[in-house]
Amino acid sequence: MKKNWFYLALGLTFIASGSAHYLGLSSILQFALAGVAIIFVAGFLGRATESVAHYAGDRLGGFLNATFGNAAELIIAIILIKDAVNGKPALFDTVKASITGSIIGNLLLVLGLSVLLGGLKFKNQTYNIRMASHSSSLMLLSVIALFIPAMFASRMNHEHLTTLSLTVSILLVAAYFLWLLFSMVTHKNELADEAVEHGEAAWSKKLSILFLVLATVMVALVSEWMVGTLEDFSHRFGLSELFVGAFVIAIVGNAAEHSAAIMLALKNKIGAAVEIAVGSSLQIALFVAPVLVIVSALMGQTMDIVFTIHELVAIGVAVFIASSISRDGSTNWYEGVLLLTVYVILGFAFFLLM
Amino acid sequence: MKKNWFYLALGLTFIASGSAHYLGLSSILQFALAGVAIIFVAGFLGRATESVAHYAGDRLGGFLNATFGNAAELIIAIILIKDAVNGKPALFDTVKASITGSIIGNLLLVLGLSVLLGGLKFKNQTYNIRMASHSSSLMLLSVIALFIPAMFASRMNHEHLTTLSLTVSILLVAAYFLWLLFSMVTHKNELADEAVEHGEAAWSKKLSILFLVLATVMVALVSEWMVGTLEDFSHRFGLSELFVGAFVIAIVGNAAEHSAAIMLALKNKIGAAVEIAVGSSLQIALFVAPVLVIVSALMGQTMDIVFTIHELVAIGVAVFIASSISRDGSTNWYEGVLLLTVYVILGFAFFLLM
Amino acid sequence: MKKNWFYLALGLTFIASGSAHYLGLSSILQFALAGVAIIFVAGFLGRATESVAHYAGDRLGGFLNATFGNAAELIIAIILIKDAVNGKPALFDTVKASITGSIIGNLLLVLGLSVLLGGLKFKNQTYNIRMASHSSSLMLLSVIALFIPAMFASRMNHEHLTTLSLTVSILLVAAYFLWLLFSMVTHKNELADEAVEHGEAAWSKKLSILFLVLATVMVALVSEWMVGTLEDFSHRFGLSELFVGAFVIAIVGNAAEHSAAIMLALKNKIGAAVEIAVGSSLQIALFVAPVLVIVSALMGQTMDIVFTIHELVAIGVAVFIASSISRDGSTNWYEGVLLLTVYVILGFAFFLLM
Repeated sequence: MKKNWFYLALGLTFIASGSAHYLGLSSILQFALAGVAIIFVAGFLGRATESVAHYAGDRLGGFLNATFGNAAELIIAIILIKDAVNGKPALFDTVKASITGSIIGNLLLVLGLSVLLGGLKFKNQTYNIRMASHSSSLMLLSVIALFIPAMFASRMNHEHLTTLSLTVSILLVAAYFLWLLFSMVTHKNELADEAVEHGEAAWSKKLSILFLVLATVMVALVSEWMVGTLEDFSHRFGLSELFVGAFVIAIVGNAAEHSAAIMLALKNKIGAAVEIAVGSSLQIALFVAPVLVIVSALMGQTMDIVFTIHELVAIGVAVFIASSISRDGSTNWYEGVLLLTVYVILGFAFFLLM
Repeated sequence: MKKNWFYLALGLTFIASGSAHYLGLSSILQFALAGVAIIFVAGFLGRATESVAHYAGDRLGGFLNATFGNAAELIIAIILIKDAVNGKPALFDTVKASITGSIIGNLLLVLGLSVLLGGLKFKNQTYNIRMASHSSSLMLLSVIALFIPAMFASRMNHEHLTTLSLTVSILLVAAYFLWLLFSMVTHKNELADEAVEHGEAAWSKKLSILFLVLATVMVALVSEWMVGTLEDFSHRFGLSELFVGAFVIAIVGNAAEHSAAIMLALKNKIGAAVEIAVGSSLQIALFVAPVLVIVSALMGQTMDIVFTIHELVAIGVAVFIASSISRDGSTNWYEGVLLLTVYVILGFAFFLLM
Repeated sequence: MKKNWFYLALGLTFIASGSAHYLGLSSILQFALAGVAIIFVAGFLGRATESVAHYAGDRLGGFLNATFGNAAELIIAIILIKDAVNGKPALFDTVKASITGSIIGNLLLVLGLSVLLGGLKFKNQTYNIRMASHSSSLMLLSVIALFIPAMFASRMNHEHLTTLSLTVSILLVAAYFLWLLFSMVTHKNELADEAVEHGEAAWSKKLSILFLVLATVMVALVSEWMVGTLEDFSHRFGLSELFVGAFVIAIVGNAAEHSAAIMLALKNKIGAAVEIAVGSSLQIALFVAPVLVIVSALMGQTMDIVFTIHELVAIGVAVFIASSISRDGSTNWYEGVLLLTVYVILGFAFFLLM
């Protein structure tokens, strides 16, 4: 009975939000409707992720959630790059700002909220310490790979910088696939969380996967509708491109990760929540960003992998604090406070930047 | 019998040092008398801290020691800020230099000496590893909070920088109070060291607290008398303001932490010693420094939270090496050597700076 | 029978390579012969190291290997410094480039290959976690000691910079000897790996040590012959001095560490392999580099300890990723991939540098 109401609300708000978008109603109305719709589609996605995790295990479930969540971002970024290659090179900066925002949004906001809310409900939440240790090393690789081109850029000509960007990108994609091989095949068992008591699954296995795909698509659509209105809003309120790209769009764009990770943390499955948050930012840094460089090269104008000093600082501090907190394989509410504090400080700093 | 001699010497040297100060005798005489007096008042403070720790536990005892020790520094800094607001803005730099010196003095010199001397007496000294892990994350937050404004300052106007400094300060004070809530209330038990066999306490509970306050006030007074003479000395020997602020004043100003921490380490209570050293620098970074920014704003001219690159390097390397060493919850003499080596290198570098 | 063939090939290729060098044959022929000879002498060194480790323990064996390996580098560097003092100051930069290359070569390439190949044969390889933790702290000290002079150099005159370089160097050498005292005397037992089942030793104790010295000298000679031809090659292919110093020479110059470490890793003695790789880079940073500064001062013109920003970045990222990976006292193939990925990225960046 309760569930039927939920699906009814899900369908109605989704249709209302979509109609407002395609009919081009006022952006305030569009924003309000998308804001209500995203609550229900995110809830739907959370349920689907959990049901898939019931069959596939927490880690694979988390990986699927991260992948579907980032697929939408990848597609949006490729569209931007196409425009950038066709005469709007400034859009390369927008793409990099949204990559930055997505990494720090996952590592600080998604992880911070999951750890805080999970920690308020359960005193200590633990997960596989080996997984945490490996994730830290991979996050460090991401920072190094973005840091080196930026440090060497001033003493390279454009051609060499393009070569370096492409080489680093190819190496990162290779490292990411080997990581999947390592964590999903050769060392799968020792990286798994302890068996968690799962309740009955909501749906059958096939239906769960189908609903996961469906829910992700719905979240992606509603996010996009919301992002469209946000740009209008941001100009009205005088927000900078960098701030909108790195914070506003990233928060809405990561709705999939938010809803699923927090829901899992509240069910004491913090390992899966960490997998979504950390796994998603690793995927952005080691897969999405390099693929965008490679795609731009195939389109004829290579986007270099040189981030601004402010973006590097943001990514660096996010990685260091998340790594310091997650390294011991145990979380509590105060660690959530630490992550969110760093996020808010970064948000203010970017907001005040000229 | 032995104790009576101690209290007699304590009283006499304290009165002699105070008299020399208020009568304005030669600074060499003042320095010598304060140097003798500080040995006895520091010894008195060490006893009082240990006696309070007997009743309140090592961690609360350490916290009280750090708090009383920093209270004096906070008051001196507020006086400097009052002068800075009234037309001597250069004093803001002196305040920041002394904050820097206090953080690295606690993390490298106090912790280094405690770990070295404790390690020469006991082969390995252990303490609660969870506490060490949390302290590391908090130290990292301090570095991040000081690092971000410095990195963003060049692209902000004065007004925005003031806003950012105030915002960061308020967030840090909030994070510090939540940390107290976390470590003293919600997760108190699991952060405690294993029950240590305590001997009989020197005094009753009330008398211990009274003596702790009294000893702290005496240490603060003698430190101030000594600092007064040191400035005269430093001009005579051509030392820079920065070096005096960050090293000379900080070493004398942290006499309270020094004496108590080393005494505890020599009694194999390294957990309490680390609590004093690390806890004191956390309090400086997360409470004293932000409160000074807020106080300056209330006085009408906000001190920004932008430290020089050399100060940031000093704080950064101190946090990284202290964190690397303390993270495993075990210390030995060589780790003390490492901390002191970094301190001496930093001292030389600041001394040679033009 | 099989062994006799090995020693015959060892002797013949060594003599052939030496003859080509001293007869001044074409550099292509010299390179080819040295390339074949180095396979056999490196194999000989690996056997000798293992046999010594059988008697002296893995750690002392590893230390001896690192020391003999670095002795050759120290001698070559002193010859360069002599030339630098006598009117070719640019050679100071070559010395620093080769120090950089040796540190990152050991931490990334030697360690990476050992961990990767060992990890492909054994699922997880473990070693003493305390040793790993201490090594991390020491590596951090190395980075700090090289980082501080570079950060302070711009605000110091030449005389002060020389004083700082000498002071830091003396402190580092002192720290290194205290480290040997700590790890080989006062805390020897708790830093040892668990007793490993050793097979029968190849030779008697005395003969093992004799062969270790002999093999090291042979490796040093063949490396030098190869280095001589490489410089000719590098000019022909237009490689920069920095790239040749930091990568080409370092790879060949570390042949001793390579062969021994990989051979030990393949016999599941990863602790000894890590000791060689990490111990060798620690020895370079904390002993070889400072001794070179002191030697140059004794020759009348002090080489400062200021590395370029690119060298510091390379050393810094190598230390951070190696530390992140080794800190848990366990290795697997993917950690080898991570180390090698960072090495290749750095190699490309230096190669493309103008």
